[in-house]
Amino acid sequence: MPVRVVCYGLGPIGVGIARMAASRSNVAIVGAIDIDPQKAGQSLAVLLGSSAPALSADILVSNDAAETLASAKPDVVLHATSSSLAAVRDQLVQIAGAGAHVISTCEELSFPWTAQPQLAADLDAAARQHGVALMGTGINPGYAMDALPLMLTAPCAAVRSVRVLRVVDAAQRRGPLQRKVGAGLTPEQFEAKVHAGSVRHVGLPESLHMLATGLGWQLDRSDNMIAAVLAEQPYTTEFVQVAAGQVAGVRQVARGFIGEREVLSLELRMYVGAPDPQDTVDIEGDPPVHMRITGGLHGDVATAAIAVNAIPSVMRAAPGLASMRDVPLVHFFR
Amino acid sequence: MPVRVVCYGLGPIGVGIARMAASRSNVAIVGAIDIDPQKAGQSLAVLLGSSAPALSADILVSNDAAETLASAKPDVVLHATSSSLAAVRDQLVQIAGAGAHVISTCEELSFPWTAQPQLAADLDAAARQHGVALMGTGINPGYAMDALPLMLTAPCAAVRSVRVLRVVDAAQRRGPLQRKVGAGLTPEQFEAKVHAGSVRHVGLPESLHMLATGLGWQLDRSDNMIAAVLAEQPYTTEFVQVAAGQVAGVRQVARGFIGEREVLSLELRMYVGAPDPQDTVDIEGDPPVHMRITGGLHGDVATAAIAVNAIPSVMRAAPGLASMRDVPLVHFFR
Repeated sequence: MPVRVVCYGLGPIGVGIARMAASRSNVAIVGAIDIDPQKAGQSLAVLLGSSAPALSADILVSNDAAETLASAKPDVVLHATSSSLAAVRDQLVQIAGAGAHVISTCEELSFPWTAQPQLAADLDAAARQHGVALMGTGINPGYAMDALPLMLTAPCAAVRSVRVLRVVDAAQRRGPLQRKVGAGLTPEQFEAKVHAGSVRHVGLPESLHMLATGLGWQLDRSDNMIAAVLAEQPYTTEFVQVAAGQVAGVRQVARGFIGEREVLSLELRMYVGAPDPQDTVDIEGDPPVHMRITGGLHGDVATAAIAVNAIPSVMRAAPGLASMRDVPLVHFFR
Repeated sequence: MPVRVVCYGLGPIGVGIARMAASRSNVAIVGAIDIDPQKAGQSLAVLLGSSAPALSADILVSNDAAETLASAKPDVVLHATSSSLAAVRDQLVQIAGAGAHVISTCEELSFPWTAQPQLAADLDAAARQHGVALMGTGINPGYAMDALPLMLTAPCAAVRSVRVLRVVDAAQRRGPLQRKVGAGLTPEQFEAKVHAGSVRHVGLPESLHMLATGLGWQLDRSDNMIAAVLAEQPYTTEFVQVAAGQVAGVRQVARGFIGEREVLSLELRMYVGAPDPQDTVDIEGDPPVHMRITGGLHGDVATAAIAVNAIPSVMRAAPGLASMRDVPLVHFFR
């Protein structure tokens, strides 16, 4: 019997997840939810386009979550509506109340215990009450800068520090991402957007806390810095033009300290023309571990893939709020 | 409260595990078992030497497993007595019967369902009956050529093949390992030992089956080949002398096929003087993933570390026989 899945949230990430879910023979999409009036009432198959051949034509996108959950009776809800945990709290509680496991791309859900302990406790209680597991995941946070580095410490007798570097050439990614990282802005425009909170990568502190908690480290201090990377020469992509001296994208660094010692460093470089895309983990330990994924992990495909690939793991997890370190190993399944 | 641990089997691997367990503040060694008459009755602290300062002086190695398990009441037994599942079956059943979780370095236990389904079913039933989890792990099998490659498929929408290459320079490892891979033998002596089964790396088929099962692939055919690597020039280590033309070590390859297509390839090169030690995983998929750990993962330290680091994961796992893909993420803990 295929797993019954409802897709909740059909923005770019949610559509990617729904397409991938529709392609899996062991997954059946039984409902779809989005509050966008442009989408509600539409056929999901039409919305996803030709890349979702296996989809039943009579699944309509609904803006009534309660009704859809009650009638579709999903095993798992794939949720992709917002980065903010406060914004999605009620949606998640409602899904748990319907008895469905939740996999969400809400970045702040990936490891909420440190930054938002009360929300985490509420969600854990709701999930336990209804016997379901609830997890936030994606490529970052959820994998490249937290779960994978943690897994790489398994062969270590001792760990003194973990440094993670993720380099993404935004020019190879979709237009919204290029605009999200500020490509083509002036430095002044970028600063204004940072202050307004509209240029940011959500999730780096969550990754930092997952690593610290997993390793058993009590951090004395942590920080999180975002800065523009300016183009040294003009750069033109399919979507944006960047003049020399304009913003090419962002560099963001989150660090954790024990005393004055920097024990965790997570650096994300995401800009058009970024050379040598990669995911690198350097563990100073006994033995040391130096891992590199050449070319890096493709963020858009990977977030959708991880959300879908997490289905079996979340269904086997203990009830409650979980992170990627709590559930059975997430990997591709057919 | 520290986790109560009994160390069962105090050969080179078991001693390494016991030393590492003794170094962890959240682990308390409460008993030790070995059938070797030279060791029974000895103080574990003396056997482990000065590198285990935290160990109580009054823990004596016992050759009476039943008595030790009953009196020490461990939460977890760290088991390292044999590579053969048939040989350790009764030991594992006895431990489960005493109500303790088991982490074992028995290579054939790492993924026994395909090759030894009846033994696997027996052990699963015993573990469930007593509400404990039972898992085989180590660096290889258990991590480098199965769990880690599986984890690396999480960002993939599709996987067409997985190739794993592990290169170990045996010259940098302990003497027994150099002799185990046949360093210094003539090609004829090597062949004789392969036929006698005394030169082999146990676990490659188990890794292959963990990957195939995890990915949902039904293999039509698999093979497992071992061959000598001959020294092109003389090589001298602390432990062996290898003349040109003599055996430097082994190359072993396990492959899995669907139809005529090679979908899995696990290659292990372990010989004195092996250039460029590494652990490499190449996933042909959407997107592809190319991962490399430069220098490779150090086998002796890593197997002990993984066994100890798996303690929290096994204690949180569902009762029954488990593999590294079934338990919460294994990572270093303090």
